[in-house]
Amino acid sequence: MTGQRRGAARRSGRRAGESGTKEEILAAARRKFADLGYDGATIRAIAAEAGVDPALVHHFYGSKEHLFAAAMQLPIIPSEVITAALTEARPAGSTMGEHAVRTALAVWESPPVYRSFLGLLRSAVTSEQAAAMLRQFVEQAILAPLARQASTDDPAEAEYRAAVVGSQMLGLALTRYVLQLGPVATADPEELAATIGPTIDRYLTGCTG
Amino acid sequence: MTGQRRGAARRSGRRAGESGTKEEILAAARRKFADLGYDGATIRAIAAEAGVDPALVHHFYGSKEHLFAAAMQLPIIPSEVITAALTEARPAGSTMGEHAVRTALAVWESPPVYRSFLGLLRSAVTSEQAAAMLRQFVEQAILAPLARQASTDDPAEAEYRAAVVGSQMLGLALTRYVLQLGPVATADPEELAATIGPTIDRYLTGCTG
Repeated sequence: MTGQRRGAARRSGRRAGESGTKEEILAAARRKFADLGYDGATIRAIAAEAGVDPALVHHFYGSKEHLFAAAMQLPIIPSEVITAALTEARPAGSTMGEHAVRTALAVWESPPVYRSFLGLLRSAVTSEQAAAMLRQFVEQAILAPLARQASTDDPAEAEYRAAVVGSQMLGLALTRYVLQLGPVATADPEELAATIGPTIDRYLTGCTG
Repeated sequence: MTGQRRGAARRSGRRAGESGTKEEILAAARRKFADLGYDGATIRAIAAEAGVDPALVHHFYGSKEHLFAAAMQLPIIPSEVITAALTEARPAGSTMGEHAVRTALAVWESPPVYRSFLGLLRSAVTSEQAAAMLRQFVEQAILAPLARQASTDDPAEAEYRAAVVGSQMLGLALTRYVLQLGPVATADPEELAATIGPTIDRYLTGCTG
């Protein structure tokens, strides 16, 4: 699918109908997200870069998060997956944290997500510009929905707890997929959910000990 | 100091006394660790590559871990720092986990460690060969001493717990230093020790909930 999409893209010249316009918007989005960061790249700026009306960008992609996901070939919308994992009915006996770990592993281990996730992580670790873009995206699309599940009325405390959850979840991805460290790389998802789930619960609820 | 060392290195030709020989051993070590991994690169193979007697490598560097640390310009010996942090007398009222988090942050935040640590992490995330080398090093020099502190008689269980500790600690480093994610990047080390320390304790002791 990547190959087909790239094949359809045009660098210049006339529009090849809707798919050509969509490709130009995605290419403009990639440039603007890289140059201005996730926060700075507005739909308006991306539309101007692509030479189209902002309404057309909204029509094709809806929100900025959906546009970012399409531009980065993320096959999921992170905030939707996270909100669903944290609020949907869970299997009996599972805590919110266990279910979050289980869901994250299932999502990461679907091959297209795995590839784009590793690509984003690699760029962020090697380029400060890419790190800034990923940081802003993670804060908006991942930490903000996590913070809404933190059991506190203090927004700063909720943000802190969400970011600590992020440290454990991204560390799990780093050690399982990138470093492939010891038994974390080979552990059954249910075992990891049982070990790490209570940590996520504790971070979100703020209960220590 | 890096500059001086590099200035003293020779690609070929006559030995410039002890510092020239040490530089040749370090260059040979870097090549062998990259080619054969941390486990595969024996002191004997590195000595052969440098054209010196293995006894001389032992004389200059002692253990393979010390040689690796010198070759990678790691200004600390990870296993010694970890063992000290986990077994030394702790400040009153601190758990093992809190003290481990506090010590790790202090070590990482010393500028020379910070630079070499980020360098190792960047190589590992972008090159599978470097990831394999770092994985083996982390398993030997970091997870093995951690596993010895896990309160279990089952070696496989101890290794698993140590690796899960590694996932949280590396995730903390990734989010605080590389992604600089939200409030984890700016939090006071004592706050992070209070939040994440109990997680490390729980992973090492295996107590859930």
